[in-house]
Amino acid sequence: MTDSHPLNAVLVDDSIKLEQQGSILKIWLNRPESRNAMSLNMVKSIMSVFNAIAEDTSIRAVVFRGHGNHFCAGGDIKDMAGIRAAAMNEGSNKPYIDFNRTFGAMIELVDQAPQTVVAILEGAVLGGGFGLACVSDVAIAHQNAQFGLPETGLGILPAQIAPFVVKRVGLTQARRLALLGARFDGEKALQFGVVHEVAHDESELEQLLESTLEQIKRAAPLASRATKALLHRASTQEALGGLLDDAAAQFADAVNSPEGMEGTMAFIQKRKPTWADE
Amino acid sequence: MTDSHPLNAVLVDDSIKLEQQGSILKIWLNRPESRNAMSLNMVKSIMSVFNAIAEDTSIRAVVFRGHGNHFCAGGDIKDMAGIRAAAMNEGSNKPYIDFNRTFGAMIELVDQAPQTVVAILEGAVLGGGFGLACVSDVAIAHQNAQFGLPETGLGILPAQIAPFVVKRVGLTQARRLALLGARFDGEKALQFGVVHEVAHDESELEQLLESTLEQIKRAAPLASRATKALLHRASTQEALGGLLDDAAAQFADAVNSPEGMEGTMAFIQKRKPTWADE
Amino acid sequence: MTDSHPLNAVLVDDSIKLEQQGSILKIWLNRPESRNAMSLNMVKSIMSVFNAIAEDTSIRAVVFRGHGNHFCAGGDIKDMAGIRAAAMNEGSNKPYIDFNRTFGAMIELVDQAPQTVVAILEGAVLGGGFGLACVSDVAIAHQNAQFGLPETGLGILPAQIAPFVVKRVGLTQARRLALLGARFDGEKALQFGVVHEVAHDESELEQLLESTLEQIKRAAPLASRATKALLHRASTQEALGGLLDDAAAQFADAVNSPEGMEGTMAFIQKRKPTWADE
Repeated sequence: MTDSHPLNAVLVDDSIKLEQQGSILKIWLNRPESRNAMSLNMVKSIMSVFNAIAEDTSIRAVVFRGHGNHFCAGGDIKDMAGIRAAAMNEGSNKPYIDFNRTFGAMIELVDQAPQTVVAILEGAVLGGGFGLACVSDVAIAHQNAQFGLPETGLGILPAQIAPFVVKRVGLTQARRLALLGARFDGEKALQFGVVHEVAHDESELEQLLESTLEQIKRAAPLASRATKALLHRASTQEALGGLLDDAAAQFADAVNSPEGMEGTMAFIQKRKPTWADE
Repeated sequence: MTDSHPLNAVLVDDSIKLEQQGSILKIWLNRPESRNAMSLNMVKSIMSVFNAIAEDTSIRAVVFRGHGNHFCAGGDIKDMAGIRAAAMNEGSNKPYIDFNRTFGAMIELVDQAPQTVVAILEGAVLGGGFGLACVSDVAIAHQNAQFGLPETGLGILPAQIAPFVVKRVGLTQARRLALLGARFDGEKALQFGVVHEVAHDESELEQLLESTLEQIKRAAPLASRATKALLHRASTQEALGGLLDDAAAQFADAVNSPEGMEGTMAFIQKRKPTWADE
Repeated sequence: MTDSHPLNAVLVDDSIKLEQQGSILKIWLNRPESRNAMSLNMVKSIMSVFNAIAEDTSIRAVVFRGHGNHFCAGGDIKDMAGIRAAAMNEGSNKPYIDFNRTFGAMIELVDQAPQTVVAILEGAVLGGGFGLACVSDVAIAHQNAQFGLPETGLGILPAQIAPFVVKRVGLTQARRLALLGARFDGEKALQFGVVHEVAHDESELEQLLESTLEQIKRAAPLASRATKALLHRASTQEALGGLLDDAAAQFADAVNSPEGMEGTMAFIQKRKPTWADE
């Protein structure tokens, strides 16, 4: 992706790097010197990107990955020092609150993103990095990745990520993981329901990513967006009747859409649908 | 079951076949020529049966199974052609909406059925068939069964089944399965939480069904109904206090009911309760 | 723990025994002659203890364990006889309702306890014992433990525990387990999500408990309490925005608390935080 790509204009700094391959946008966490610790600028850049592409149906998947063989080691300590100074200066907790809350807003934005979100999890997947992993649609881990919620051991709380961890792994696992500050590897992450697949080496990791992206491309772009939104609604306590009514209307629209017609035709003709090569 | 069995009168056509053995009703999906694709008549027949037996406490379990070694390959393409004609005729989407919504109403009816519902899953368990599997109380799969949500690959949505899939496997798995249109076998279905048990050959499948039915018969008919309803209430966000109050009242009623007294007596006398042989 | 320990004064009888080691309180279920069947006095004693220690931040974990190599075989039959007499006497169901409801109040109290709750599960873990296991933060089972919900087989309902079982293992597993009255061992309990770890012999069980308690001690006392409360809120359908706002405020408070400052300092100095040895 050239530097002149319009999406680069929305980045706050180089804490993330973008790479586009057709309908796939890769977001590289790019602070390898600190195991991609989540800085405020990184948080803001990720939000900018998702806001910028929200309506762009040509981008069908977003892949999160860390440079330097780590995903993300959590919050950034240097940022915290700056916030401490700001808080002292204005004599209030507000800088801490804003900092923390902004991170939660980013996680929520990624969770609700219309694109299919893939996370490639290597090395450190801790704290905020763990939270980000928890909102992916497909999570693929290296077996040597190190997952964990170290917050309680530091005297703080996994505050913004708690709801997303509970949604991901259920209350049973979330309680133990958060209260013990437990560290665990890729196999355990699979067992706990954090990730969907585990690779035993780098080449398997690339292969699993490749086949995932192939599968995403086989799914119709608009139908995938509508399906993801529907699954999110289904995970709330919205009344079932109204949800199924809306779903039926969406089904009817989809069947009669260009995608629905091409999908049926391709199925009958035993060929790939046209969108599969985009 | 003879053709004169009163339940046969409620069937719309022969897209399902009924078989009663004591307190167990088997529903055979009976369109093997199309891998038991879910036709509108099949949907309506299933609803008729569940409505007819709702108050009949002599039927304690319903077993769903497909003729021809497939469970159900999803919606019926021929039906869709008819609906397309009807929609063109009246110049509206309504036939599609009604068709889709009726399927959801059937799934909900089976989900809330007072009987214990068992699904025997062989061959294709796709789309709507997958949705039906997701509302069983006990699901037993052949390891070679092929599960999947192919909708997004066809340009459409797993519209009516989305809420039931999320309830079954959680949002984490549901997102990946629906967005990738992934296919998977019985072992994976067990791992993902779609099914409870996997058989490695036909004879093990029969054996698992047999032992499941034995266990169902050991459970008291009315207590089982009350328990299933209670579990459904517990999965909503109903306030805990009121739910536990009602549960305590139901407990007291059950203890003093003929079932509760027979159950205690049988336990003390180390014998099977009388209902176990029905 | 000496008999003069003030907590002993809150016990109704000797159906539980207390043992305190630093910040860890062990509650021994102490009716080995009936496999620690849950008597009304046991229920009341457990509630008294949790009410007494609610504000005592020096107690950081509570460990439940059964004397005589059983955890708890469920409700107490002798109690039921007494309740039957009381109900006959006053010609009403009320004694049954109160008895059952009190048990649910105890389960809820333990579920919401600010301490980290550990359950060591050996031998019988049935009915009410199963329910108690379901509200622990960390559950460690012996592989030979016998889990189950026998209620429907006795003509009664798993009334008070149903919501906690659904929360623990999800609706999919809860339906099968309750409707079949299935019995299963520690490995299955791990697979179903009832427990977090399985020990293959006594010494491994002790070792897993020891390492769990070490990990709990590494977590900051107040941050752990706040985190547990936050996870509980996250498992309800409380609106996400307000929850994350509160979480950000709690995060800011924690960072600036003595715990947060000691935690950061210890991390930078690569030493254990002071609370780890309490």
